[in-house]
Amino acid sequence: MDVKRRMNDRFKDLEGGLFSAVTKADVGEGVGNFLAAGGANMAWADPFYPDPSVPESAKKAMMEALESGTVSHYVMPIGDLALRKALAEKISRRTGLPIDPSRNVIVSPGSDSGLLFSMMPFIEEGDEIMIPDPSYPSNFLNAKLLGAKAVPVPLYEEDGYQPRMEEFEKRLTPKTKMVLISHPNNPTTTVFRKEKLEELAAFIVKNDLILVSDQAFEDHIYDGIEFAAPCTLPGMWERTLTVCSISKGLGLSGFRIGYIYADDHIMDVLYGAAVNVLGASNTLASIGAVAAVRDEAFLKSNYERLLRRRDLAYEILSEIPGVTMKPSESGILSWLNVSALGTSAEVADYIRDHANIMVNQGTPYGAQGEGHIRIVTACFANDEEAAGRFRDIKRALTELAKEKGIC
Amino acid sequence: MDVKRRMNDRFKDLEGGLFSAVTKADVGEGVGNFLAAGGANMAWADPFYPDPSVPESAKKAMMEALESGTVSHYVMPIGDLALRKALAEKISRRTGLPIDPSRNVIVSPGSDSGLLFSMMPFIEEGDEIMIPDPSYPSNFLNAKLLGAKAVPVPLYEEDGYQPRMEEFEKRLTPKTKMVLISHPNNPTTTVFRKEKLEELAAFIVKNDLILVSDQAFEDHIYDGIEFAAPCTLPGMWERTLTVCSISKGLGLSGFRIGYIYADDHIMDVLYGAAVNVLGASNTLASIGAVAAVRDEAFLKSNYERLLRRRDLAYEILSEIPGVTMKPSESGILSWLNVSALGTSAEVADYIRDHANIMVNQGTPYGAQGEGHIRIVTACFANDEEAAGRFRDIKRALTELAKEKGIC
Ligand SMILES: Cc1ncc(COP(=O)(O)O)c(C=O)c1O
Ligand SMILES: Cc1ncc(COP(=O)(O)O)c(C=O)c1O
Repeated sequence: MDVKRRMNDRFKDLEGGLFSAVTKADVGEGVGNFLAAGGANMAWADPFYPDPSVPESAKKAMMEALESGTVSHYVMPIGDLALRKALAEKISRRTGLPIDPSRNVIVSPGSDSGLLFSMMPFIEEGDEIMIPDPSYPSNFLNAKLLGAKAVPVPLYEEDGYQPRMEEFEKRLTPKTKMVLISHPNNPTTTVFRKEKLEELAAFIVKNDLILVSDQAFEDHIYDGIEFAAPCTLPGMWERTLTVCSISKGLGLSGFRIGYIYADDHIMDVLYGAAVNVLGASNTLASIGAVAAVRDEAFLKSNYERLLRRRDLAYEILSEIPGVTMKPSESGILSWLNVSALGTSAEVADYIRDHANIMVNQGTPYGAQGEGHIRIVTACFANDEEAAGRFRDIKRALTELAKEKGIC
Repeated sequence: MDVKRRMNDRFKDLEGGLFSAVTKADVGEGVGNFLAAGGANMAWADPFYPDPSVPESAKKAMMEALESGTVSHYVMPIGDLALRKALAEKISRRTGLPIDPSRNVIVSPGSDSGLLFSMMPFIEEGDEIMIPDPSYPSNFLNAKLLGAKAVPVPLYEEDGYQPRMEEFEKRLTPKTKMVLISHPNNPTTTVFRKEKLEELAAFIVKNDLILVSDQAFEDHIYDGIEFAAPCTLPGMWERTLTVCSISKGLGLSGFRIGYIYADDHIMDVLYGAAVNVLGASNTLASIGAVAAVRDEAFLKSNYERLLRRRDLAYEILSEIPGVTMKPSESGILSWLNVSALGTSAEVADYIRDHANIMVNQGTPYGAQGEGHIRIVTACFANDEEAAGRFRDIKRALTELAKEKGIC
């Protein structure tokens, strides 16, 4: 029996690498085998991976809770109240919005499931979802999994990857239901500027669309760039779902704590489906997250470490012959134009084979990702170790540049 | 703007209690407020809630891992390999099936999201899903959330809630795609007998259906009743997704570790969507789960505690005038026929108001749940405390029986 006969078109052609070789980072044993053979993984957006990085505040709170033995029990499916309070405070402080922890916030076991969940109430078969290209790959696949059509809207390197409204305008159809952005953008690290977001918001309101704003990287913005939350713009609160995470900003990916905030009319529906779609989040991690979210000193020191790392990565990688890049505007990533050296796949494979480091090809992020690679430059706790890897990449690509006759 | 206008029919009428009073157990702040006011919660299927119950083996492994500080990082989206190995061993030991941890198992952050995930690849708008009634309420809502029609198939108390095949036969249509069972059943605790499952399996194979078998309660079966896993029956392996959890059997609900096992052709698709639908599971809990799953002494002692509790619950609750019940066949629940005392809602409310204990109404489990209530009799670590609550319920319902002129 061929079980795929009974599957729907949204899923039947998906592959997790069981019947094909996996060389990518995300699933299957491919990455495990590569690491076991001594390779380095700079393809997971996981700050300081694989080194210790749990803050003492969270460690202490969790040790006590674990010792007590009651962390075996469920928190509420919508999220532990103490955590929702800590998150509501943080969101209010950032946005100026009055956030009620019992009406406007839901905790999800990581923001990946939170992203799909925030799309589910809205999307019907055949809907179209506008997604800036490049963007986080899950965004495109999420559209497909829900029976919608992902409509990539190109961002251009020459614009610093800021949105061009005419690209949205000309792709609008009666089927357009949603705009889905990663802000700051993954992979480009672009912080969409307030005036650009205002144009986008006006377009969304005028055409009665829904916005899902993935802000997984909002905690670390560099060089004094202003970060505007789209939900604070005129007419947007009532039609925006903001999806956040402690994975990147707090560097606590393994905790699996994400959160969505929105107007209570939206939240009522999410609460009503929470058990089914999310289950609940991890109890011990919820306790640790309360401590970490409130730990101002930890946040500050993480920010300083990541800024220093950003500079270090730029210093080394931007010197590679054939590579062009800008200093990252946010977060933990570097985005390199390597088109002079080959295709995205060729260059990523070359780094894997000659520097023993796994980085991301640009193409899973959209057509605009061709000729680019993404490196999680915040990997490794130690700056010297990270710098060593950057130099390994530099050495390998300099070799490649020579092969190509660039230098 | 009324945002629900832009929602699909599957979600738009869901409510999480933000705009209506919540008295139910599952979401919103209703339960928190009830507990804060001194009430007892015997409505969450969470063994020994709210008392300590993390086994020493898991605690020790987790303390060490937490101390190391590396639990901040992601495990693989399909689940930590060490955990998949431990689970594969357990499944193989139980079922005799050769389970490859890298091809047949995926870890989910709890089995609630695992259940929806196992349905997603198969269900298309308009499909029909046969679900025994009564069953776990999420099963019915999951069908709706995926655009399918839940077709309840009645189980009868007089049959000991074993399936009657003619009830399935007469509901079969060309749209029938899936059968979804909780086995052992929640709320009735019924273990579907092997010969009944063989009939069901023959029906499923003959009509080219898919089976999702939710076995969250499979770890504790009493009185020597044989437990057959439907995926082991002829023709079923290639069309069955078995969804399990450490929440009930190991009493580790707060860890959020569930797992799905299936043929690799099915698993390939689940792996391919894992990042998007599940994200990853919690890193520290994965480490604890490896220890707990392998802790034979803990499993044995949990079994003995739960069996003793089952007997204690039966002893006290079955004596209540107007109540009929059988000793539970599995797990942590008791299922009471209270139809002589009122509707399911009336009796549950009466217990809440007169014994200050929250129990479950039978009706969310399906039409066959009318006249019944579900009590999580494994709540509280201490037998005497639990017995005290059972007696509180007995006292309240005896009062009600008097009001009704039954005794
Ligand atoms: C843009 C973006 N959003 C969301 C996520 C999901 O993160 P998590 O599920 O750990 O919260 C990621 C992870 O890489 C990401 O890059
Ligand atoms: C029958 C059944 N299946 C699945 C679940 C979900 O459990 P978890 O998500 O904790 O694994 C429950 C929880 O009550 C249940 O009763």
